[in-house]
Amino acid sequence: MTTSPLKLVCPTPSLLNDRVQLGHGSGGKMSAALFRDHFLPAFANDALLRLGDGAVVNVGGVDVVVSTDTFVVSPLEFPGGNIGSLAVHGSLNDVAMMGARPVLLATGYVLEEGFSLETLDRIVRSMGDAARLAGVPIVAGDTKVVERGKADGLYINTTCVAVADAELSPSPERARAGDAVIISAPIGRHGMAIMAAREGLAFETTITSDSACLTGLVDRLRTERIDAHVLRDPTRGGVASALNEIAASSCVGIELDESELPVPDDVRAACEVLGLDPLYVANEGVLIAIVDERDAERALRALHAHPLGATARRIGRVTASHPRVVSLRTGLGGMRIVDLLPGDQLPRIC
Amino acid sequence: MTTSPLKLVCPTPSLLNDRVQLGHGSGGKMSAALFRDHFLPAFANDALLRLGDGAVVNVGGVDVVVSTDTFVVSPLEFPGGNIGSLAVHGSLNDVAMMGARPVLLATGYVLEEGFSLETLDRIVRSMGDAARLAGVPIVAGDTKVVERGKADGLYINTTCVAVADAELSPSPERARAGDAVIISAPIGRHGMAIMAAREGLAFETTITSDSACLTGLVDRLRTERIDAHVLRDPTRGGVASALNEIAASSCVGIELDESELPVPDDVRAACEVLGLDPLYVANEGVLIAIVDERDAERALRALHAHPLGATARRIGRVTASHPRVVSLRTGLGGMRIVDLLPGDQLPRIC
Repeated sequence: MTTSPLKLVCPTPSLLNDRVQLGHGSGGKMSAALFRDHFLPAFANDALLRLGDGAVVNVGGVDVVVSTDTFVVSPLEFPGGNIGSLAVHGSLNDVAMMGARPVLLATGYVLEEGFSLETLDRIVRSMGDAARLAGVPIVAGDTKVVERGKADGLYINTTCVAVADAELSPSPERARAGDAVIISAPIGRHGMAIMAAREGLAFETTITSDSACLTGLVDRLRTERIDAHVLRDPTRGGVASALNEIAASSCVGIELDESELPVPDDVRAACEVLGLDPLYVANEGVLIAIVDERDAERALRALHAHPLGATARRIGRVTASHPRVVSLRTGLGGMRIVDLLPGDQLPRIC
Repeated sequence: MTTSPLKLVCPTPSLLNDRVQLGHGSGGKMSAALFRDHFLPAFANDALLRLGDGAVVNVGGVDVVVSTDTFVVSPLEFPGGNIGSLAVHGSLNDVAMMGARPVLLATGYVLEEGFSLETLDRIVRSMGDAARLAGVPIVAGDTKVVERGKADGLYINTTCVAVADAELSPSPERARAGDAVIISAPIGRHGMAIMAAREGLAFETTITSDSACLTGLVDRLRTERIDAHVLRDPTRGGVASALNEIAASSCVGIELDESELPVPDDVRAACEVLGLDPLYVANEGVLIAIVDERDAERALRALHAHPLGATARRIGRVTASHPRVVSLRTGLGGMRIVDLLPGDQLPRIC
């Protein structure tokens, strides 16, 4: 992989700092700052302090995991999915990454006046199909309508309620020096599919989003009793942002092998044309698992047994040196630091 | 009260029927049709069939109530509250109306690029204050940002997870002939406060929203072991829509006494100027309780003991005659049918 210059679409964070900027929705440094400075002080409680969009709470004696996510992807339909299937996959994946078993989905819709009911039907059917395939019912739905010109047709919020699994409790804080870093599938497909659809770009092949429900993969690890230290779906901000957050939370270094990174040819080509780095491009059907080195081969076999993990492979290791830093060993033998972006490469991909 | 002609802001439902209309967000007939025709077929499951935006589901052996609601109120700040306090009250009230005890809130935000962080801070602080006052933590928050010109500054989704109470299980299907219909507070304040703020109307006094958390009132009924047959907060579509839905679900008639309806003078005056009927104006801090006639006096005493229910009173009764019809006995001794509106009197009041 050649390293492309990054294209930032948000203004420098120090400018306009009394206003919301697109970068605040990136899942990167600016999102973290927005959460830390503007939400945490007002809501402070133990569950929220631990995590942003997901939490473990005792509900009537049961440890319940709750995760909420709002989807504003543009365009609403893209190769490989639409905002509906994405909203179901996204919320199911959030709780799956906490090792929990999803029980129900609640959904809320902001509809734009004039939005096509035929398109709505297609999107809602995709949601129903995705939820049924995952075996999780959608038990609540609330609709609001705003005037023409607002809401880009449709925004969807999904909240997933799940039961925590005492036997499987991955956490961004549990990566340990020596652990193996495994990825379940090729990277960059979702973000590039959205980008191509949005900008009307025609490449030689149509890049298809990888949007998928990852609970099946997590169940494979659960069945094999693999103590995954960290599970993460690298969505907004891609693999780079996910690993940076893990490195910071666990106070470890993470070293990636560039030659092992699975970047599909079409994604690589599109990224080069657009000046993007696949490490920062969003995925919606990819799992990162960080496991003890002794469990690595077993974990790979477990993932290989599931269609979504057929090409799972190691991409790197956790190190004690350079804590909080993610680095990439390049094809030429050099090392490059893979930093957290301040804002978005690609806004509104979920 | 004189009956004002109704001002409908949505087009006739039969027109444009392949497009979303503002009336689809009204909570009235069009909302019900949207849900029935476009969401139910795709999501069909037992929990969803029973209710729209709230459901009871077994989670790890515990009966959990989940309710989700998206708030698109315009303007974002108004006398008596803002979108933040409203979002907390709204979701807490939804589960309270099912007799459940709220345990946590999860929140999702769609922010418009350029939105003032100072305003965001004010709104988020109100959410924190409202949640703390109710004793319910906000445990999850997800933020997305959309481009300038979309999202009117801010939309908020709140989902409340609560534990069902086997001793208190009100339902819109449980109204029985002979039951008393009780209301906890004067009606119409929230809708008229929003309307006045949005349109910049100056009345002699400033109408203040009644937005409040109703869990305290429900706890009063719980403590007194009153078997409330139905509890309902008459939000979108007001008292008229709430009672119509109950009359239909329970297959009973409901007769209201116009002289008993608590309409504040300023609300009545504003409604007359604008050609609105207070029975259809939204409330956000009002509880309707339908109880056995033998429990009515005890229920009133229980409500009177709480500040939000100090002026609680009977407004009518449930009848076996005229099933599915809500009627109003007017000051002149006549009867008027209080029908469900097809769409919105006042869009975007929550």
